[in-house]
Amino acid sequence: MNAKDYMTKLAQEAKQSAYLLAQLETQQKNNVLKTIAEVLEKNRNDLKKANQLDLEAAKQKNLASALIDRLVLNDKVIDGMIAGLEQIITLADPIGEMGDFHYQPSGILVGKMRVPLGVIGIIYESRPNVTIDAFALCFKSGNACVLRGGSEAINSNQAIAHCIRTALTKNDLPESILGFVEDTDRALVGEMLQASGLIDVIIPRGGKSLVKRISDEARIPVIKHLDGICHIYLDDEINTQEAIEISINAKTSRYGTCNTLETLLVHEKIASQILPLLEKEFQSKKVELRGCEKTLKILPGITLATENDWHTEYLAPILSIKIVSDLETAIEHINYHGSHHTDAIITTNYEHSRQFLRAVDSASVMVNASTRFADGFEYGLGAEIGISTDKLHARGPVGLLGLTSEKWIVLGSGQVRN
Amino acid sequence: MNAKDYMTKLAQEAKQSAYLLAQLETQQKNNVLKTIAEVLEKNRNDLKKANQLDLEAAKQKNLASALIDRLVLNDKVIDGMIAGLEQIITLADPIGEMGDFHYQPSGILVGKMRVPLGVIGIIYESRPNVTIDAFALCFKSGNACVLRGGSEAINSNQAIAHCIRTALTKNDLPESILGFVEDTDRALVGEMLQASGLIDVIIPRGGKSLVKRISDEARIPVIKHLDGICHIYLDDEINTQEAIEISINAKTSRYGTCNTLETLLVHEKIASQILPLLEKEFQSKKVELRGCEKTLKILPGITLATENDWHTEYLAPILSIKIVSDLETAIEHINYHGSHHTDAIITTNYEHSRQFLRAVDSASVMVNASTRFADGFEYGLGAEIGISTDKLHARGPVGLLGLTSEKWIVLGSGQVRN
Repeated sequence: MNAKDYMTKLAQEAKQSAYLLAQLETQQKNNVLKTIAEVLEKNRNDLKKANQLDLEAAKQKNLASALIDRLVLNDKVIDGMIAGLEQIITLADPIGEMGDFHYQPSGILVGKMRVPLGVIGIIYESRPNVTIDAFALCFKSGNACVLRGGSEAINSNQAIAHCIRTALTKNDLPESILGFVEDTDRALVGEMLQASGLIDVIIPRGGKSLVKRISDEARIPVIKHLDGICHIYLDDEINTQEAIEISINAKTSRYGTCNTLETLLVHEKIASQILPLLEKEFQSKKVELRGCEKTLKILPGITLATENDWHTEYLAPILSIKIVSDLETAIEHINYHGSHHTDAIITTNYEHSRQFLRAVDSASVMVNASTRFADGFEYGLGAEIGISTDKLHARGPVGLLGLTSEKWIVLGSGQVRN
Repeated sequence: MNAKDYMTKLAQEAKQSAYLLAQLETQQKNNVLKTIAEVLEKNRNDLKKANQLDLEAAKQKNLASALIDRLVLNDKVIDGMIAGLEQIITLADPIGEMGDFHYQPSGILVGKMRVPLGVIGIIYESRPNVTIDAFALCFKSGNACVLRGGSEAINSNQAIAHCIRTALTKNDLPESILGFVEDTDRALVGEMLQASGLIDVIIPRGGKSLVKRISDEARIPVIKHLDGICHIYLDDEINTQEAIEISINAKTSRYGTCNTLETLLVHEKIASQILPLLEKEFQSKKVELRGCEKTLKILPGITLATENDWHTEYLAPILSIKIVSDLETAIEHINYHGSHHTDAIITTNYEHSRQFLRAVDSASVMVNASTRFADGFEYGLGAEIGISTDKLHARGPVGLLGLTSEKWIVLGSGQVRN
């Protein structure tokens, strides 16, 4: 079967089963998730054996050790997968919820019902546990899915997919609810991105080059974020200690995450007082500082930042610093240079906080908190399938609700329209 | 200036002004809308003169009379534009609304704020009043816009755009809030559809061929609907009189609208009783009936429907009728053959109504009401920029809310993440 036929069949069967899945009651869905956890538990050895094949192939190919680390499916990772399932079982089921009913002048009662999107395509790399996480979130939100993992994890992913299918069968549900791409042929990704009308949305999970390629090629809506160039603006009215603690946390608690601080904006009135204190803290954490010309007058030992620095997501122990003359300039800098991901103001001034919240055009806008909080778990979503920096449909951390839509419900009693 | 540079400049300036517009207070926005109404009132003669140029050109080109009708900008149409503005002034401003704030275990307070999308591109045909309606809805929801009307209405649209710009200037706002495409070069539409990063969403308003071309070509999200193949299912437990009244209304109150009934599904238990009554009513309205084989046994005088009929939006006095064995078959038919626009069940059975509401995968699902109610005004949205049969972002009638997004707001008091 060629790539197009293979993908069409897989997506069509997933779509067909999606109608059934959309009708399942919460208890039925939770039973399936519970069964998956049990099957994973029973199949630990098979999972680890399959993973060995991937690990050996990766070593033969001399893959980078960081990549091999992500491939590992040991008892700890399996424990995490099972814990993840148990957590998703506890989440409220949004499907079928109704609300916002209002009588209209014609006498009809108009409201909305929350429904699944249908079929969700997920394209991911390396980590085999994504197969469970992604399936479980799609399933709980009533969506069938088409999963395409990295070729380097194919054996592990197949073993996990086998567990999911076993659990579906045990619960008298069609295996096609999980559309698992068994083949590592790259042409299949291309076909997946063209499967308009069969797959409702694509969520890429992986590095920037993967995400960019997918969003460029896709003829289906994509929920994605490319960059996380996050800013903190230190206002002229601040609690200095708080400003330092938040800046240090946002930059140094983890360097590789998308909600990590990359550019610090400092009001000129407080710059000469706070920058030397910040420099000392960042130096002790071995963070390289790059500053604008004004910054260098206060911190002569650091590197001069270029225009490029303001557009860069370092994902590394590097921080760019710019001194700004006022709040408006800070907001303009963020809206122009940022990636519309997460930006924070540190201030004790009420009006400044309101203006910043209103004017900064980002998925998450914060006052007096670390940008590192931009995360589905920290926002109380329970779990996260990804983060969106787009404005349509889902924005910011995407949980179960981001995998749903609403339809209009009209309850009449015989009304006709004049 | 070539098409690409022209469109980039227009969209960039619109985007720039969108940041300013997003901050305007409701009163400021309403003042502008009020000024536009006043300027239109003062410029009636200029508007009608400009429209004469379009009408004369249309006659010289021998455009169809229906098309010329839609072009007309007379006092009645101008009155309608002014009334539309007054109505949009009365709508609640969704921008800046905040809600859903919950404390998280870390101590941060997480909620959401409603914000504009940014720049909305609207591509439309013929009717010049769309220039006002579309601008006013975008403006009230805090969005700048790029408008591209039909070449046949260019003089009328330019005259209207001039009124909008005059009103913006009088209110000390940049004219670039209205990105009006002055040129009728078709290449500009192509560039508009590629202006990713500058235009946030495209809304096509016009015939199916326009909408299809735009959604095929666009590299920007499109809010659209292509077909309105609406169904009514007459259940085995019904109030016969109500069923007949609703069916007649849904089919015959207007033939050319997207929420008009195209296929009637009838439960086999009631078919022989209700179909002759329906035939009589439809005959008196000169509606051609096309039925499945079972239907023809009851109504031998009508045409046999082909597979194609079940997929066709007639937009004409034609109705297809199919007898089904049960509710499940009706639902399957609708989900497979329909266009996911609007579908209704007529029933007195509680369980059947719930099953239909849950299982039918359409933007609007109704019980005991005419499909003709699927409309922004009838749903209480106040006004409608279009209808979406997509599931992402906006579904069904799209009002002001459909032109907005939400961002996450995090209110902290110095929290850092562990």
